[in-house]
Amino acid sequence: MKPFIIKPIGKDLYTQLQHKINAKTKPLGALGDLEEIAIKIGQIQCTETPILTRPTIIVFAGDHGIAQEGVSAYPQEVTFQMVMNFLGNGAAINVFCNQYGIDLKVVDAGVNFDFSEHSNLINAKIAKGTKSFLREPAMTDSECGEAINKGAEICSEIHKNGSNIIGFGEMGIGNTSAASLVMSKICNLPVSVCVGRGTGLDDEQLKNKIDILEKAAKVHEVSRPLEILRTYGGFEMAMMYGAMVKAAELGMVVLVDGFIATSVFLVANAIHSEIMDYSIFCHQSDEHGHARMLEFLKVKPILKLGLRLGEGTGCALAYPVIKSSVAFLNEMASFESADVSQKE
Amino acid sequence: MKPFIIKPIGKDLYTQLQHKINAKTKPLGALGDLEEIAIKIGQIQCTETPILTRPTIIVFAGDHGIAQEGVSAYPQEVTFQMVMNFLGNGAAINVFCNQYGIDLKVVDAGVNFDFSEHSNLINAKIAKGTKSFLREPAMTDSECGEAINKGAEICSEIHKNGSNIIGFGEMGIGNTSAASLVMSKICNLPVSVCVGRGTGLDDEQLKNKIDILEKAAKVHEVSRPLEILRTYGGFEMAMMYGAMVKAAELGMVVLVDGFIATSVFLVANAIHSEIMDYSIFCHQSDEHGHARMLEFLKVKPILKLGLRLGEGTGCALAYPVIKSSVAFLNEMASFESADVSQKE
Repeated sequence: MKPFIIKPIGKDLYTQLQHKINAKTKPLGALGDLEEIAIKIGQIQCTETPILTRPTIIVFAGDHGIAQEGVSAYPQEVTFQMVMNFLGNGAAINVFCNQYGIDLKVVDAGVNFDFSEHSNLINAKIAKGTKSFLREPAMTDSECGEAINKGAEICSEIHKNGSNIIGFGEMGIGNTSAASLVMSKICNLPVSVCVGRGTGLDDEQLKNKIDILEKAAKVHEVSRPLEILRTYGGFEMAMMYGAMVKAAELGMVVLVDGFIATSVFLVANAIHSEIMDYSIFCHQSDEHGHARMLEFLKVKPILKLGLRLGEGTGCALAYPVIKSSVAFLNEMASFESADVSQKE
Repeated sequence: MKPFIIKPIGKDLYTQLQHKINAKTKPLGALGDLEEIAIKIGQIQCTETPILTRPTIIVFAGDHGIAQEGVSAYPQEVTFQMVMNFLGNGAAINVFCNQYGIDLKVVDAGVNFDFSEHSNLINAKIAKGTKSFLREPAMTDSECGEAINKGAEICSEIHKNGSNIIGFGEMGIGNTSAASLVMSKICNLPVSVCVGRGTGLDDEQLKNKIDILEKAAKVHEVSRPLEILRTYGGFEMAMMYGAMVKAAELGMVVLVDGFIATSVFLVANAIHSEIMDYSIFCHQSDEHGHARMLEFLKVKPILKLGLRLGEGTGCALAYPVIKSSVAFLNEMASFESADVSQKE
C-alpha cells in the first residue's frame, strides 16, 4: 500500500474570497452556508474563480460475512440485485445522477456474485464477500491493502478524465453493522449508541442486531484506524477509503454521504486529518448514529431530508447547492458593477 | 376584488401513491421527505405520474413608507437598484434561476422609481411606495384590492403559458418590518418576537426597529387578515397574496420562500386554509421570526441553509429536490421490474 500525502489547503485566499463575497449585491452573510462552501472550494482550488468539472459519484458494492448472522432485514442477494439495478438505470442514485448531470460509476469491490462483463461496471472484486467478524477479521491484511489501492487507482482514473469533485456511495447488505462497529471503535462510543435499524429492522430484530454487534466488538482488540477498518469493514468500505483519501491527495472536492460513507471518513480523518479541508458533508441520514458521527466530527451537513438509502443519494441531492455556491461566487454582480448603494 | 375558491385536494390517491412508492427498489420510507413531496404533488395533480412544467419564480418589488423611519440598514433606493440588477441578470436569484432552468419574472408592484420600459419587467405599479403605517394604513382599500387582483392576473398569465409550479420572491427595503407586524397580528405574538435584523442591523438599530414597530402595532386596531395586510403590508406583499392564492386556485404547486413570503402565506392560510395542501415550504430563513412562523404553521421546510436574502432564493434552491421527488416517483424501478428480492 502506497502512503497518501494530503496537502493542507492554503488559507491565504480566505480574505480575498470573503472580500469578493462581501462585495456581491446582497446583505453581508445573506447566502448563509453557500458562502462557506464557496470559500472552501475556492481554497481547495486556490482560486477566486473555482469551477466544478465532471462531477462523479462512485458506488462501491461489496458483501459482508456478518450478513449471514441475521443482522439485516434483506437477504444478501439484494447486493448483487441492486448492482444489476444500478446498471439498468433503475435505482434512486441513477435517477438523481441523470437529473443533475453527475457521472455514475459502479464498482464491484467484492460482491458474492459472478457478474457478466458490463461496460458500466468496474470489476475490482477482492473476494466474494468478507468473512464474518463475529469469528475472524473481515479482511486479511493483503485484501484490505489491495482494496485501498484499487480505490485509489479508480479515483485517479476519474481525476485523469477531468473530474474535480467526487462523491462516494455504497451498496452492501450488512454494511450498517460494519459501519456501526467502525464508529464505535473510532469514536469510542458504546455499540448500542452506534447501531440503527439499517434497511428497516423492527424492535426485536434491532435488539438482536445490537446483541450480535456487542459480541463482535469484544472478539477483536483493535485500536489503530486501519486495523479497525480491516477487522470490521467491507471491501466497498476499504475501497472507498482509498478513493476518498486519494481524491483529497489529488486536490478534488470530496463529497461525504451518509452513515457508511461517514464511517469511512472517520477512519480517513483519524489518519489524515487534512482531509477535512477537502470535504463537504452532504446529508444527515435518518440512520441512528449518523447525527452522532457528524457531531463527533463537528460538521454540519448541507441537507437533512430524512433519507436512509445510501448509494450516494445524499451527495447527488446536495450537488446542486454546491454548484449554486460556486455559481454565485462567479456570476453575481458586485455593488459596484451593478451600481447598488451599500449599507448606510 | 374577485373571490378566490381553492378546491381541497383529493385524498383518494394517497394509498395508490404510497403503494407505488413502497414498490420502488429501496427500503420502506428510505427517501424520507422526498416521499412526502412526491405524494403531495401527485395529489395536487390527481395523478400517479405527476410532471413539473415551466417552473417559474415571480419577484415582486415594492417600496414601504416605513423605510423612511430608520428601520432598515439600507436606503430605499436599493429597491429600484436591485430591480435593475434583476433585469441585468446580476442578482443571486438570477444566478440560481439560470442554473435550474426556472423562468424568472420581475414585477414592479410599487417601487418609488420611474422605470423605462424593459422586456423583462412587468409594470404593475400601484403607487410609488406605501404610506408609513406609523401614521396611517400602508394601503387604501382600493390600492390593496388592485394589488391583489393584479397578482392574480399575473399568475393566471403564467399558468396559461404552461407553468404548473410557481414560487414567489420579493424585494422591498423595509419589508421585514411589514412582515413582522403581519406576523405579530396574525399569530398573536408580541412584536419583539417577530422582529429581526433584516438586512443586517446592529444591536442598537434592532432595538430602535423594535421600538418603532411596537408603536406602529398600537396605532391600528385590526384583526381581519386582509385588513392586517392592507394596514402593514407592502404592494409587493399584497400582489404576492393575490398570485399565491390564485396559483392554488389554478391547481399549481405553490413554493413558499422565506420570512416575507411566509408572512403573506399566513394571511392566505388564515382566509383559505386549503392553500396548505398546495404549498411546499422551501427554506427556513435565518431571519429571526421565520422559525416561529413555520412552527405556527406546523410545517417543515426542505432546506435550512442559513440564507436571509429574499428574492425567492429559497424556492430556487429547493427546486431540484422537488424535481427529484417527482423524478424518483416516475423513473425508479420497482422490486418487481428490477427483479430485486423484498424484505425477508
